[in-house]
Amino acid sequence: MPTINRYVDISSVDKETRKDYIDRHSPFIECAPQAKAGEKFPVTVRMGKEYSHPDDADHYIKSIQLYDGPTLLAEAGFLSGTMGGTGKKAQAEVTFNVVPSGSRMRLTALSYCTKHGLWECDVTEVAVSQE
Amino acid sequence: MPTINRYVDISSVDKETRKDYIDRHSPFIECAPQAKAGEKFPVTVRMGKEYSHPDDADHYIKSIQLYDGPTLLAEAGFLSGTMGGTGKKAQAEVTFNVVPSGSRMRLTALSYCTKHGLWECDVTEVAVSQE
Amino acid sequence: MPTINRYVDISSVDKETRKDYIDRHSPFIECAPQAKAGEKFPVTVRMGKEYSHPDDADHYIKSIQLYDGPTLLAEAGFLSGTMGGTGKKAQAEVTFNVVPSGSRMRLTALSYCTKHGLWECDVTEVAVSQE
Amino acid sequence: MPTINRYVDISSVDKETRKDYIDRHSPFIECAPQAKAGEKFPVTVRMGKEYSHPDDADHYIKSIQLYDGPTLLAEAGFLSGTMGGTGKKAQAEVTFNVVPSGSRMRLTALSYCTKHGLWECDVTEVAVSQE
Repeated sequence: MPTINRYVDISSVDKETRKDYIDRHSPFIECAPQAKAGEKFPVTVRMGKEYSHPDDADHYIKSIQLYDGPTLLAEAGFLSGTMGGTGKKAQAEVTFNVVPSGSRMRLTALSYCTKHGLWECDVTEVAVSQE
Repeated sequence: MPTINRYVDISSVDKETRKDYIDRHSPFIECAPQAKAGEKFPVTVRMGKEYSHPDDADHYIKSIQLYDGPTLLAEAGFLSGTMGGTGKKAQAEVTFNVVPSGSRMRLTALSYCTKHGLWECDVTEVAVSQE
Repeated sequence: MPTINRYVDISSVDKETRKDYIDRHSPFIECAPQAKAGEKFPVTVRMGKEYSHPDDADHYIKSIQLYDGPTLLAEAGFLSGTMGGTGKKAQAEVTFNVVPSGSRMRLTALSYCTKHGLWECDVTEVAVSQE
Repeated sequence: MPTINRYVDISSVDKETRKDYIDRHSPFIECAPQAKAGEKFPVTVRMGKEYSHPDDADHYIKSIQLYDGPTLLAEAGFLSGTMGGTGKKAQAEVTFNVVPSGSRMRLTALSYCTKHGLWECDVTEVAVSQE
């Protein structure tokens, strides 16, 4: 409460509209599997892998937050009209650069769609090697 | 994932430090039980009811979000040092004014502490009468 | 750059549409003229004094920030549809509670309209008495 | 009001501490000089070019906003401790992806340091070719 929708592997989903719905609302994390402590480490979060989300005034991706376990690392806010505008579709995407200090990160992302609420993705494990 | 901590009635909790920990991290919603559609309706969200949270540079309440069911209505962001500063304690608090359009609201709040992560409160039901 | 629009006293403005435009885009600060150091001090920021702003999906007040001189104290974010929705008008409004620690505050607010950009108001001086 | 600090070419500045102060507080925009309408266009904003900013609990870069003229395109929020932590220095950096629709963009960025307030950079012109 509020409901947080969780990503489901769409290869397990039958209906095309359902695949589209789940995929474009899920944040996907892209980063290297290993990081170095004290060095800048880029993490890209992109909405949708095979499908893309509308950029309509009343239906757009408002925000993406990047967490390491329970800890918020960074967040991005978007406004409608910057991904092509009404009737267009584009994958909202942001690249953060974090500097890890521990021995591993457990990255997740939480996104908000103005029509379909909060969505989170699975955990991406990153091993952090010490210098 | 990220973990979202849920409020627990502290009268059911034994340890004093545990009561303090739960209470000061929970957002509490204060508003009238009824609203009128189309009219401004104030909703106050306050962190802690009986206890208050530090305002230290490395430990403060960063944000409060107000939801109606899955829908984000408004959010507030705070910076450390504005609630009295290091060593002081004060209840982070914000009053939003929403204008309801449906027949009821199911309000919840989600807050973020820079040390103890996300916390949410129970649902507050508000009946909305039509004009 | 970005342009920041400044409030102009609308009694000095001739055209009705211009008065409306300026007034509804300006944040107005309401608070007591004096605060006590270490005590919670409510500050309300409201968009528009005599006029009110649309709440359309492509035209709404996205955010209000409250500053003390150059220092950001708190900020609020809004989403379209929470002030009555399309075709409706309501004054976006938020009440922050700050706990002053210095001897005076010089409050200003900065707001963002999704169609007409950044707007700021005049400074509100608040004397802070020590306990 | 609030004061917005503007970038000054540090090659025109004598004092080393002053160069450092200005450079690490200024957002710098990096992107291609030309974009295609309707296609994703990455824009990186980095704090500091030759110097870098602390990541202390009471002194860090809280946010970066990217504007096209008066229009906010996207914003990023940061928390202290994610750029290496206390005593460490790292350049806060974010890459947004916008999809331009007009014929040119006039990009600027506005950043906020929790100790030294708002800073903005010069305009970066981007020509947008139609498909």
